Amino acid sequence: MATVRLQATSIDGTVTTPRGFRAAGVHCGIKADRPDLALVVSEGVASAAGTFTQNRMRSAPVIQSEAKLRSGRAQAVLINSGNANACTGVQGFADAQAMAESAAAALRISADLVLVASTGVIGRPLPVDRLAAGIPAVVGALGSDGMAAAKAIMTTDAFPKTAAARVDLGDGVATIGGMAKGAGMIHPNMATMIAVITTDAAVEPALLRGALRTAVAQTFNCISVDGDTSTSDSVFLLANGAAGCAPIASEDERYAAFVAGLTDVAGRLARMIVQDGEGTTRVIEVAVRGARSDADARLAGQAVMTSLLVKTAFHGAELNWGRISAALGRSGADVDPEKVAIGIGDVWVVRDGVGLPENYAKAEPLLRASQVRVTIGLGLGTGVFTGWTCDLGETYVRINSGYLT
Amino acid sequence: MATVRLQATSIDGTVTTPRGFRAAGVHCGIKADRPDLALVVSEGVASAAGTFTQNRMRSAPVIQSEAKLRSGRAQAVLINSGNANACTGVQGFADAQAMAESAAAALRISADLVLVASTGVIGRPLPVDRLAAGIPAVVGALGSDGMAAAKAIMTTDAFPKTAAARVDLGDGVATIGGMAKGAGMIHPNMATMIAVITTDAAVEPALLRGALRTAVAQTFNCISVDGDTSTSDSVFLLANGAAGCAPIASEDERYAAFVAGLTDVAGRLARMIVQDGEGTTRVIEVAVRGARSDADARLAGQAVMTSLLVKTAFHGAELNWGRISAALGRSGADVDPEKVAIGIGDVWVVRDGVGLPENYAKAEPLLRASQVRVTIGLGLGTGVFTGWTCDLGETYVRINSGYLT
Repeated sequence: MATVRLQATSIDGTVTTPRGFRAAGVHCGIKADRPDLALVVSEGVASAAGTFTQNRMRSAPVIQSEAKLRSGRAQAVLINSGNANACTGVQGFADAQAMAESAAAALRISADLVLVASTGVIGRPLPVDRLAAGIPAVVGALGSDGMAAAKAIMTTDAFPKTAAARVDLGDGVATIGGMAKGAGMIHPNMATMIAVITTDAAVEPALLRGALRTAVAQTFNCISVDGDTSTSDSVFLLANGAAGCAPIASEDERYAAFVAGLTDVAGRLARMIVQDGEGTTRVIEVAVRGARSDADARLAGQAVMTSLLVKTAFHGAELNWGRISAALGRSGADVDPEKVAIGIGDVWVVRDGVGLPENYAKAEPLLRASQVRVTIGLGLGTGVFTGWTCDLGETYVRINSGYLT
Repeated sequence: MATVRLQATSIDGTVTTPRGFRAAGVHCGIKADRPDLALVVSEGVASAAGTFTQNRMRSAPVIQSEAKLRSGRAQAVLINSGNANACTGVQGFADAQAMAESAAAALRISADLVLVASTGVIGRPLPVDRLAAGIPAVVGALGSDGMAAAKAIMTTDAFPKTAAARVDLGDGVATIGGMAKGAGMIHPNMATMIAVITTDAAVEPALLRGALRTAVAQTFNCISVDGDTSTSDSVFLLANGAAGCAPIASEDERYAAFVAGLTDVAGRLARMIVQDGEGTTRVIEVAVRGARSDADARLAGQAVMTSLLVKTAFHGAELNWGRISAALGRSGADVDPEKVAIGIGDVWVVRDGVGLPENYAKAEPLLRASQVRVTIGLGLGTGVFTGWTCDLGETYVRINSGYLT
């Protein structure tokens, strides 16, 4: 057997970069003047998996798509932006089903193979007539340009988010492509925002689920914009086998290579979401080391990542490490105040729990960069966690205090 | 025995309203140009109790004052603002002790009877020389004006916070007076910010502790400004018996009357802290009813109170109830999406989990008031919780992204 290169290769690309996928994005009138309807279609029935929000107030499309994915098969994903179809009661379920059925009719496939997702304002009825009227246009526009679909799923996003990777599977090269949207209600304790990832690898549904779970745990579930978990979070993964490689049917080296590629694509999309967090000016990577356990490391990291005081200090590029210490102290993780170390980039500013003023001048310029790396040493064990968050500025408040208007 | 009126009477007042207490506030030079040193002294040794932050990174003064309070006795509380003496290592403990000793020497009492607290920036050495130099001034200024002390403990607070109450104990009337400071790093999962409450009632130390715990659980521990728990939170309660009433020595009606008065004072101080939250324009009361348990009601209420998206929507006076639903859904409390009801003031905007658009126009003007009451019905049991939070505006971000400068 040929040697498998476990390292996937990052490339530019979209959901249509893998063979056998078409996509489109159009304006159907849910939003005033921006694209609001996206469709991704596989040329044949694909293996499919999804992960969904852990919020108890799950939207109708989340509940419906999760049920459909029990079959492990799907052929299309239809997504609208501008309305989340969440907290919409019985009508919401009927609307989500109508949405799937109109796409299925136009595509001449079964509605059971059409996954749906909706993103936007919560608690308003989905304008299902406008959406249905847009179906012929979006089906007619299907083609190899995946960027139009990535633009149509944006809400407050400032830029479309796409990424791709190539993976050598020994008997051929498979491609993985993805798109995602942010940009608010983003918090790691979930199964995350809306993303669609396609691949022309052939993967058995059960393995596809495991691969997605593994990739999401290290990527989308390690980011936070504002600590609020959405009611609509959905990640879809479709594998159509069009690359012609043999199916991945066990957790072997080929599976590991596929997971590496999937994690690369998901990780780049996740970091783009943080980079485009509402009002963000910089991305903060928070790496926790030396925790009592990985679970403790995640608690500690998330407390820092979601602290308003930490995020506003980063906005001001201020070296207010006391706020990081305070967040660690309330995180619920085991913390020994006399063992804490905090570094900015390669500069330690806290050791044994107290400041190192002689290093402050070296650390301060690093805080003004667009990417800031914070390392937290707890000195208690081998637990680790790495997550990504953003600063919080006046713009976040402005966007979210006038969201409806 | 005389009938005890359990209802306490709210009055205006400060820590010097109860008999036998003097206080002062002066400028000692920790802050550039504002009062930064406060002292409260009882004429004799008082029963004393305290509650302190649950943050693992407890400041040196917190650790020291808690240890002193094991005796159940104290005579003075010395507080500086401008520097929290937190995350300051061994030097921090020495500085906190030096602080207590200089006040004790000037007052000619034991340092064991002097409680200390510090509030301000974390992680910088306490300028203990300046503080010691200010001791003669603050002792010399001791008098019946409690407002000067309330001003000297302010950090980003916009106004001093004081409250008092009278309680009929059957054999006489006792008075309770208090002061508190906010205004950031305020979050309910704690034993809270800095407050000093005095009373001329006579109360055994063990009962005083119980009374304080009861009052704090319903007041300071039910507020949130920004979800960040401080390293310095301290509430001190001194009871000197100067009213001349018989000691409260068991959990009888007189104890209940005292707890009612204490809860009144603590509750008014707590709501003042929210009203003065950094950048606040309105106070939001969140009342959860019908939860599976009181613990569940608290989880649900706190998720709503700390949601950035909920707080920014209230800032914009927008009826974006979907964000309240989303926060309930991720709260960890048991929630049935089809049973949720949400009211603004007396107007229901959600019933059975879906919006009541016919009521929106009635609710919207209520959102523009300085006090907004939100009622959440979960329809699952008898658990209740009431808490207070504030909106979040650009000003909060401005204050906290330029805190050090």
